[in-house]
Order: sequence, then structure tokens, then C-alpha cells
Amino acid sequence: MSPDLLMGLAIEAAWKYQGLTYPNPAVGCVVTGSRGEILSIAAHQKAGEAHAEVLALKDAYRLLSGDKAIEAITEATSLHDYLRKHHDGCLSSSTLHVTLEPCSHHGKTPSCALLIKDLGIRQVHISHEDPNAEAAGGANILKSAGVDITEGVLHDEGSELLAPFIKWQKERFVFFKWAQRLDGTIDGGTVSSQESRKKVHAMRDVCDLLVIGGNTVREDRPTLDARLVGGKAPDILIISHEKVFDRNIPLFDVPGREVFISDSLEPIETYKNIMIEGGPGMFALTKEIADRHLCFLAAKSGGTIPFTKERTDFTILHSLRSGEDMMMWLKG
Amino acid sequence: MSPDLLMGLAIEAAWKYQGLTYPNPAVGCVVTGSRGEILSIAAHQKAGEAHAEVLALKDAYRLLSGDKAIEAITEATSLHDYLRKHHDGCLSSSTLHVTLEPCSHHGKTPSCALLIKDLGIRQVHISHEDPNAEAAGGANILKSAGVDITEGVLHDEGSELLAPFIKWQKERFVFFKWAQRLDGTIDGGTVSSQESRKKVHAMRDVCDLLVIGGNTVREDRPTLDARLVGGKAPDILIISHEKVFDRNIPLFDVPGREVFISDSLEPIETYKNIMIEGGPGMFALTKEIADRHLCFLAAKSGGTIPFTKERTDFTILHSLRSGEDMMMWLKG
Repeated sequence: MSPDLLMGLAIEAAWKYQGLTYPNPAVGCVVTGSRGEILSIAAHQKAGEAHAEVLALKDAYRLLSGDKAIEAITEATSLHDYLRKHHDGCLSSSTLHVTLEPCSHHGKTPSCALLIKDLGIRQVHISHEDPNAEAAGGANILKSAGVDITEGVLHDEGSELLAPFIKWQKERFVFFKWAQRLDGTIDGGTVSSQESRKKVHAMRDVCDLLVIGGNTVREDRPTLDARLVGGKAPDILIISHEKVFDRNIPLFDVPGREVFISDSLEPIETYKNIMIEGGPGMFALTKEIADRHLCFLAAKSGGTIPFTKERTDFTILHSLRSGEDMMMWLKG
Repeated sequence: MSPDLLMGLAIEAAWKYQGLTYPNPAVGCVVTGSRGEILSIAAHQKAGEAHAEVLALKDAYRLLSGDKAIEAITEATSLHDYLRKHHDGCLSSSTLHVTLEPCSHHGKTPSCALLIKDLGIRQVHISHEDPNAEAAGGANILKSAGVDITEGVLHDEGSELLAPFIKWQKERFVFFKWAQRLDGTIDGGTVSSQESRKKVHAMRDVCDLLVIGGNTVREDRPTLDARLVGGKAPDILIISHEKVFDRNIPLFDVPGREVFISDSLEPIETYKNIMIEGGPGMFALTKEIADRHLCFLAAKSGGTIPFTKERTDFTILHSLRSGEDMMMWLKG
């Protein structure tokens, strides 16, 4: 299998967790053996948990060493320690294909570059350099240790994968999420499957702010929390000219949450990872500020209100199954 | 990686060629090495060409032996012969994960079961038994040779993959294909990308009959051939009460093609692999006879005519990228 094909698998693995890894980037990693066979495919799933490289190295080590004891270890530092202590050179002829330059620094978890070096790995393929000044330098650490580094493998695809993280670092990342049917409609009962709703809750869990329209709040009386995944509820910005709301609407009753009611988008400026949920009105209002759009698509028909009548051409960046639905990351 | 996960990869590889392998089924195969590492992933692409197992074994052999000479060999019988002659036991500790029971008989290409046996492979995972009486018995050949066979791995998913082939064998396979935008519209200029149109031409190439509505023929004046892939043009059934058509419409001018004009679907009865192309009218008319629906989805908006206003709930069987679009295999 070619380096591009292997990096493609790493990129695809990473996209599964796009929107869920904040404040970390979505990263994927494939480890191949000495003859190019695939030993493991893994992705970073959640900030604070092990990085993609470490999860992929864990699985590759398990396979090469036959040591089942590592299976029970999930915490990042423990995985680093275990691999360092037990690898016995078994990974030295492996190649890493990682969508992002391995981190150089010890943040919430130890440095991946140092681990890769210490495991004696001789070859690393990287799609995109680390844009985070604090974490960058991993490639140089590896080069200094004599590791053969190939940078820029599927760089454009790696760049699209990393774009939300880069935008977040620079300023803030804003994405617009909606759910529609195949006929374009959004009304008339629940559109998405339970698994899609869970995914949205998991995204809310890592969002700082959720933006929603006043009419939706009045009509749906939502809670807008992350209860389906036991997560934290983001702050809420209700876009509304009319400032009076029935305070019995559940979203006002979530502890520790701030709720803004504003007729402008100005309050987003103090936030970094922002999800907008809504229909045609919110879509039109936020088109210019949304960095990405995320569409959950149910293969049904039956509603009457279309998501939008506005002319819009999206580029599909990535699509994947979400329970019975599709989800598509789109670029406007 | 678990047997289910590996079979999942084989099934996914196979779906890429669904609709293109007729009169053969879509089949995928993953070969793993002695420790469970992935050596190759392949799918059957076109009738007459090598089966999925042979393509996967070719890549696995190339990787394990280091013998580059096999790369240039593509013809099925030559691949069988080359593998038999040169394998030298290198594949004996591999495991095959194949979506369909390996064929027992020598049809257009030699028997896969005999090849697997001769290569000394000790373990084969199968998702679905062969429903083709002539080709079945592969699992028994392998069992008799002492190969460890696990049947029914992801059987439901393997069954969905194989359903078009089973339906074709029993009677005929009919699928309805359309292209729409994300807003549900089908009119106002080209909807699909060039790659999607190529895929449709490749499907026409293996279809016996293409069914289309009279209004579409009058308005679009189509050719309905497979020129984008240099393929053969299927026979045409135009559904129309009005039997008079301008014979200068290009579809009438394709050599070797039969064109029926009928107000009923009766002419399909002498055909086996049938594609219906159309909009709301044809969709409603053929809903009962279409075994599957295939939707090409462009992430755009802008038309005015919706694909259908009828209430329809589909199950998404598989989705994949097709150039800039998505394509979804649906079950009504």
C-alpha cells in the first residue's frame, strides 16, 4: 500500500472525531510493519486522552509483542510508560503515518515525538506540520535522532482535517450544524437518529458556546445540554430582537450556564469553539461567520419547510455514517 | 483487529464496485498475516477479471515475498498460475476474510477455493455462503483440505452486499438511480460531478436494460450510452403513452440497441439487470418493482423541482464519495 493510501486511512480515522477533540486537533495515525503491512489504525478521540500516535503504537505493540497486558491500559501517561518499559525494540522497523507532526512538548500528556524516538522507530510520514508553536518541533526532535521524516504526505487533505484547529488557534472556530431529510426539509418531527443526536450532544460537551434563534427557543423549548453523553452544557446565545422569554424553558435552568439574549452575534467574540444550530434564518444570518457547516442527513422525506431556498454550493470535505443517517462536513 | 472489523473492511471495499460487477456479485477480501496485521484489501471490480480473493492474495504475496514481478500480472488465470508456482508457502500463515464463500468451480476464471487450498492457507473467514449452486461448495472443498473455516462473520452486512446478486439470480435486479441536490431538487442544469456521471456510464455498460420516461426523452434528447467509459449501451425502455418520438433523438441512433416504447413495465420481464433513471413520475411508477435505489447527492442547492413530494423512508445501506458528490445505496 502506498504512503498516500496509508495516510488516507489515517485521515479518515481522524475525521470520525472531528468536532469532538477540542481543544485538541483531530489526528489519525496508521502504523505499518517492516514490509508495509498495516499493524494498527487509530485516532485521537478526546482532549486529555492518549494521542493518535500512542493509541496506534499501543495496538501495534500488542500485535507484535503478543503482550495482552497493555490492552487494559488506557490512560496516556501510563501508556507512554508501559511502551517505553516493555517495547524491547519490537517497533523499531515500523513506520508511522500520522496526519499531524507528533507533539514535542509535555502538555496534558507526554511528548509523542520523544516516545517515537525512544521506541527506536526509524521512519515517520507526516501530513501536516504542527501549527501550534508550543507543541511544534516534533519533526526536528525526530530528525535529530536520525529518524527518516517525510513531510507533506497528502498535505491538502491533512490541511482540511486540521483547518478547524488552525482557525481556533488563530481566532475562533465556528460551525453551523443542522439536520435535514433527503428532500431538504427540517420540520415535522424528529429528523435525526438517536446516534446522530448523541454525536451532537458530544459536540456540545466540548463547545464553549451554542448559538440558537429565538423562535426555535420559543417553539421547541429545548434544554440544549449534553445529557445523552453525560457531558457539560455550553453557554447559550439566543439571537432575538425580543428579549423576553418564558424562563421555564429548560435551557434557562441548566446550572453553571450563561445565557445571552442578543440581536447581534457580538457575544461570540469571547468564545473559541462555537456551534450554531438552526434553520434557514440562522443559516442566512451566520453564513459569513461560519467556518464550516455540518449536515446530518436522514434518508427520508415528509416535512414541508426546506432548510434553505438560498443558492448555496458546498464542498463535501468528509462524510461518514452516523447511526441511520449520514453526516457531512461542508465548506461553503 | 477483530474478525468483524476486518470483515467490515472487506465489505466496504466490495461496495465500491456494487452495480459494476454484474453478472458477478460484488465481493471484497482482506488478507491478514500471522499476527493479525493487514496484508491487503481488495475487491472484485468487473466480471471476467480476477476475483477479490485473487487480487488480495496477489497483494499479500507481493508484500510477503518481495517479488515485484507479480505486479504486472492482471489477468485472472495468469495470477492463479503465478501464485501457485511461486508462493513457496509464504501465505500459509495468512487468514482470508472474504465477504462471499470462495467459488468452487472454474467459470470465466479458475476456482478460488482450489487456489486457497493450494497456497496452504489455514484459515478463512466468510461472511455469506455462495447462493449460486454452480459456484457453491468452496467452503466444503476447504474444510475437506483441513482449512479452518468460520462462516457467517457479519452475515447481515454480507447479505445486504450480496442482495442484488441474489435477486438477480432468482429473477432480476432492478435499481432506480437519480441525482439530486442537497435541497432535494433535480432540475436547472447538471446536478452530478463528472466522476458520478462516469460511474453511471459504467453501470449502464453492465446493464441489460435502461428504463426512462417519455418526457425525459423528449426534453433532454439523451444518448443514454456508456461513452464516458467506452462501454456498451444498454437496451432502452421508454415509458410513454404517446408512441411517437423524434427519431433524431440520439438514443435511437446507437447501433445494436433495441428500443421499446411502452406504457407498461412489461418489457423488463425478459431482462435481468435493469437500471431505471428518472424523476418523481418514474419514481412513483416503479417504487414497487425497484429492489434498490441509488441516489447521487450534490451538496448544492438551486433547482426548483423536488425529486419527490411522496413520503419515503429509506434505509441507507452504504454511502461513498463519488467525485464531488456522495452516492448512497438505499433500501425502500
